Amino acid sequence: MKFSMERATLLKAVAQAQSVVERRNTIPILANVLIEAEGDTVSFRATDLDIEVVDKASAQVERAGATTVSAVTLHEIVRKLPDGALVSLSEEGATGRLTVEAGRSNFSLATLPKEDFPVMATSEYAANFSAEAQVLRRLFDKSKFAISTEETRYYLNGVYMHVADGEDGKVLRCVATDGHRLARIDAPLPKGAEDMPGVIVPRKTVGEMRKLLEDDEMQIAVSVSETKVRFATPEITLTSKVIDGTFPDYTRVIPQGNTRRMEVDASDFARAVDRVATVSSERSRAVKLALDEDRLILSVNAPDSGAAEEELVVAYADERLEIGFNAKYLLEIASQVDRENAVFLFNSSGDPTLMREGNDTSAVYVVMPMRV
Amino acid sequence: MKFSMERATLLKAVAQAQSVVERRNTIPILANVLIEAEGDTVSFRATDLDIEVVDKASAQVERAGATTVSAVTLHEIVRKLPDGALVSLSEEGATGRLTVEAGRSNFSLATLPKEDFPVMATSEYAANFSAEAQVLRRLFDKSKFAISTEETRYYLNGVYMHVADGEDGKVLRCVATDGHRLARIDAPLPKGAEDMPGVIVPRKTVGEMRKLLEDDEMQIAVSVSETKVRFATPEITLTSKVIDGTFPDYTRVIPQGNTRRMEVDASDFARAVDRVATVSSERSRAVKLALDEDRLILSVNAPDSGAAEEELVVAYADERLEIGFNAKYLLEIASQVDRENAVFLFNSSGDPTLMREGNDTSAVYVVMPMRV
Repeated sequence: MKFSMERATLLKAVAQAQSVVERRNTIPILANVLIEAEGDTVSFRATDLDIEVVDKASAQVERAGATTVSAVTLHEIVRKLPDGALVSLSEEGATGRLTVEAGRSNFSLATLPKEDFPVMATSEYAANFSAEAQVLRRLFDKSKFAISTEETRYYLNGVYMHVADGEDGKVLRCVATDGHRLARIDAPLPKGAEDMPGVIVPRKTVGEMRKLLEDDEMQIAVSVSETKVRFATPEITLTSKVIDGTFPDYTRVIPQGNTRRMEVDASDFARAVDRVATVSSERSRAVKLALDEDRLILSVNAPDSGAAEEELVVAYADERLEIGFNAKYLLEIASQVDRENAVFLFNSSGDPTLMREGNDTSAVYVVMPMRV
Repeated sequence: MKFSMERATLLKAVAQAQSVVERRNTIPILANVLIEAEGDTVSFRATDLDIEVVDKASAQVERAGATTVSAVTLHEIVRKLPDGALVSLSEEGATGRLTVEAGRSNFSLATLPKEDFPVMATSEYAANFSAEAQVLRRLFDKSKFAISTEETRYYLNGVYMHVADGEDGKVLRCVATDGHRLARIDAPLPKGAEDMPGVIVPRKTVGEMRKLLEDDEMQIAVSVSETKVRFATPEITLTSKVIDGTFPDYTRVIPQGNTRRMEVDASDFARAVDRVATVSSERSRAVKLALDEDRLILSVNAPDSGAAEEELVVAYADERLEIGFNAKYLLEIASQVDRENAVFLFNSSGDPTLMREGNDTSAVYVVMPMRV
């Protein structure tokens, strides 16, 4: 195998690969990236056995071939090479070493046989569709904060992507929850997604996939089966197993009868919550909201360290209400609002509260109250 | 006590205080800042019993008085208040609470009696002098990387500031070493520093004092006794105990007879060292330098992961030499060079090597070789 590539192209391809590789693993070959050169294309493949990423880049291939080499070491080397350098990679079968050359730098890296590299089995996908990067980004960015970190509730350790009934027909929907708060984000159903099975996309996959979505307008090819999901750009293909479990029936959690409506500037609200939470001890972090006509008083009372109170002007016309929340949860949902005012819909102080951006029902958040 | 201050002024004063406070401490009052308002000045005092910082700021004082309150909480609150806010702090003796008000925010913080706050005893200083901030900054910035982190060698856990004999007479000198490398930085001796006892300034003090030195031209008042050192700007006074120990005789470590001279572009050198070190295992990190006429070959050989080699054009006219160093140490001293080429003076592969910037002898570094 022998080929050369411009440093920036190589760096991009290797960066994606090394980020999938797990830092600590007991199977040596999983630390490696499989490099395959053929025609005028080189592909870089990495896996943690749950996720596989393949990044294709064009290169001047002098001699076709394949080998595997430490993804982290190769990435570090390429990162440290001077910008604009032409990097040449070559392997003589005899030595078992990969030579990396650029300018006056010369590296010789240990390899492992390409035959040992675990390539993910190909699958039949039940649905194939295409979606704009910015649509997928919104679906996952606005829901991922609510993913549970409790490993025992493994079926909540991801984002549930599925087809659902929206107000105006079928939608592509992402839901995540940890039992304390829930995010439900909708997008128009792409053509071809109608028969998609609902899948729980694991947290790590959400993070890796996110890197494919930087270019707003780019069309991302999505394929879904009962066991796998695939996201692909022309260069990068990310395939991941999905979580083998049943996502709970979240619809019962979303309150329907909340009628007490408060509208507030989302960033003013978030900043005020952040300030009053300062005095509370780390563990409880309860913030009390006291609502009266067009007035919200946020307060925290921490016997040890002190108390805090802040008043905000809001739009509220219902009867007096006092309700408590975990400050972190309130901050997180308030920071999801990027276009309009935050609209909160309360019922009683013991019931879940609903939040959305203005009157837009395509992004809905639920947060459980806390006794204060 | 009652006074008000502009948020930015208050933030600056409290920031310095809370950074001295130790995060984990068993004596509650040490987590607090002592606030004293009198005349048109408020002072903020914090201590960890080794370092004391006092920051004075002008304020509209309505009622003189003093109290103590959690430094971290107060800092967090002020940090989160909107820019430009006028902040009012007041304490009624009866409640034992400090009220912090700004706009529609209101905080009530637990206090501890001012009488319990440990104020550092005043001292007689053997020397008082004044030095420009940029002079002190250079002395400490260029030496602190070599401070030892081994707690058993407590007398190396700081920078040894003392009066020494330079080439052109007495100098103010800072030295730090951990036994593997050494930095020796000189500055012209300020007037009044002649009788200064040599003191070992602890690592934490170096870090805190550094924050006083942002303004190049500012004159810093320095006072030194056998047991304490003080650095003061018009607003901030930092007093610190010095390390109670004897700094070893470093002069014997600095080689005098090294004649093999290599001159190299410092940043090219640092980048090349960084690149070849990529393949080495974390633990050994040995880089070999092979010198021949005007040519330097840097190489690393790590049997497990691979090998790396890089060639640099240097000025070198002596006989062939091979010598090994810890890559981290080489990188650290090379990154101290900011004006000129790095000049290395070697003896043999077993002897300490000297490095300086060009022909400037006011900043000299020594690094021990490693067998490769």
